Amino acid sequence: MRKEKPIIGITMGDPAGIGPEIVVKSVLSPGILRACRPVVVGDKRIVKKALGVFGSGAGMKVLPDISPELLNPKQVNVLDTADADPGQIETGRASAAGGRAVFEDIQRAVKLTEERKIGGFVAGPHNKYSVNLAGVHFAGYPPFLAQLTGSRYAFNMLVAGTIRIVGATLHVALKDVSKTLTPELVEAAIRAAGEAVKKLGIENPRLAVAGLNPHCGEEGLFGEEDEAVIKPAIAAARRAGFEVSGPLPADSLFVGLRDRQEYDAYVAMYHDQSHIPIKTVAFDSIVGLIIGTPLIAATVGHGTAFEIAGKGIANPRPMMEAVKLVARSCAAERP
Amino acid sequence: MRKEKPIIGITMGDPAGIGPEIVVKSVLSPGILRACRPVVVGDKRIVKKALGVFGSGAGMKVLPDISPELLNPKQVNVLDTADADPGQIETGRASAAGGRAVFEDIQRAVKLTEERKIGGFVAGPHNKYSVNLAGVHFAGYPPFLAQLTGSRYAFNMLVAGTIRIVGATLHVALKDVSKTLTPELVEAAIRAAGEAVKKLGIENPRLAVAGLNPHCGEEGLFGEEDEAVIKPAIAAARRAGFEVSGPLPADSLFVGLRDRQEYDAYVAMYHDQSHIPIKTVAFDSIVGLIIGTPLIAATVGHGTAFEIAGKGIANPRPMMEAVKLVARSCAAERP
Repeated sequence: MRKEKPIIGITMGDPAGIGPEIVVKSVLSPGILRACRPVVVGDKRIVKKALGVFGSGAGMKVLPDISPELLNPKQVNVLDTADADPGQIETGRASAAGGRAVFEDIQRAVKLTEERKIGGFVAGPHNKYSVNLAGVHFAGYPPFLAQLTGSRYAFNMLVAGTIRIVGATLHVALKDVSKTLTPELVEAAIRAAGEAVKKLGIENPRLAVAGLNPHCGEEGLFGEEDEAVIKPAIAAARRAGFEVSGPLPADSLFVGLRDRQEYDAYVAMYHDQSHIPIKTVAFDSIVGLIIGTPLIAATVGHGTAFEIAGKGIANPRPMMEAVKLVARSCAAERP
Repeated sequence: MRKEKPIIGITMGDPAGIGPEIVVKSVLSPGILRACRPVVVGDKRIVKKALGVFGSGAGMKVLPDISPELLNPKQVNVLDTADADPGQIETGRASAAGGRAVFEDIQRAVKLTEERKIGGFVAGPHNKYSVNLAGVHFAGYPPFLAQLTGSRYAFNMLVAGTIRIVGATLHVALKDVSKTLTPELVEAAIRAAGEAVKKLGIENPRLAVAGLNPHCGEEGLFGEEDEAVIKPAIAAARRAGFEVSGPLPADSLFVGLRDRQEYDAYVAMYHDQSHIPIKTVAFDSIVGLIIGTPLIAATVGHGTAFEIAGKGIANPRPMMEAVKLVARSCAAERP
């Protein structure tokens, strides 16, 4: 029996940035419509404005709520959050109103996912200055979604095609990485990576875990964490049924990454260890899949690009990759 | 007036590893002979054995000392260090004798360089187990050469074609990187990188310095070192006349590195930050140029590969790249 395509929510991110234009371009793209039934979660006035400029005459259907029979596949379906007044928001400029809209839309998308009205969502790009102006405390999507869902741990898995790398820590000063890592945290990252890859349809994922120190500490010469923290975490993940290799020296783990991946997912220990390899080889299509919570959610790897916002030249490909990834992740199990 | 090609010393590394075979293949290669006048610095018995197996019948000339008129361009020129007895060393096996020979040969090469009998040298691959058996304390080439030359700082600059990345620290536990970095150390790394690139013939090198923390600490949110340590180091290097950009977020600094480098050299803060980008895109030809001392010296990026030693299948290309790099570095100024 053929399943229905999943319904995927897409928030616009900061209305002053490139979010609205890449969202309307994405939801009108045949590739996206083959992968899912997209619904924009955002203020209808912003969507309408973006459609007027970038939507090639496509119509908009404003939904009172999300349910399959209300969706019109020939129009841009919008769940109006009524939280962003175009009169208060100037394209290309940070604003408190823009920052607030980002988070109100995401909270709505989380709620819709929890109510199983959408299978998952993609968050459009936010701007840190708008966020600051709005007075929102935001330390990145993983802690934000963990808090909203009452999850203990959440992680940002960077995905570019078949390259998938997650960091056990993210926005942590380098000198604090060691004290932040615990066997429980690293185990949670490994298991979250394994579960996320399974949702992508890979039944028995091969996982690799990077060491923290040069040469994995070279038997304790340059640091103890590879033995004391990472090895027990790997052992625990193996007991939970995952196929895990490591800890492996991080500098040779990613050799030839662009052309060939020995593992379905890589677990790194900190921001640059996870970000450098994937960004070095595959910058323009990196999706951040937020894993470890019950949600299926993703972000684009780029920002609001205020300097080109409103010009119609922003590349919608990362957004489309994010939507497809979320669609693929929830195709099996969600509405 | 055409200068003479520089005389370059090459040590064999551990006689039990792939060193002897890649050295004899390299010194017989037309590309190497076009770039320099190579002299093997090692035990003549080991060289003879390697020549018998891999040298296609080439002859060996044992030199009592190195001076230009003694060199025979049609033979393998060897300065006999008489420090490795083939009877004591089994191919493919770690030994104290092998470990000792590695360091005696390097000390000899350093002395020859200081006496200006050779322009610089390349050290063949060592094996850490042999080194341990020999009871030698060895924490990597930079501190070893710094000590031998009385230099305060030395660094390992990884070079693959036009990609050049140096770490301000190397074999340091990740948690200790922050306390190891000082403005003086980072400035020394930047200046050493700049001087090394100048020796390669690039007159006004463009240098980039990576930040330590995620997003360079995001204005102090995730660590202070980018402001407190790296910025003053950059300012000092600029005052010394170098063109330096940074600190720049390390995860985006290396985007597209394989195809295009915006900078002539990159200065990273620690082992994996320097090694991951270059190894991810260019594993098989990485040279370690040891910079910051008065010497011109390099190492190959690989080990002794005991499992394939003596079979003639080891790839000599990294060794040849190292010899060419040293030759290029000293072509302008040395014998």
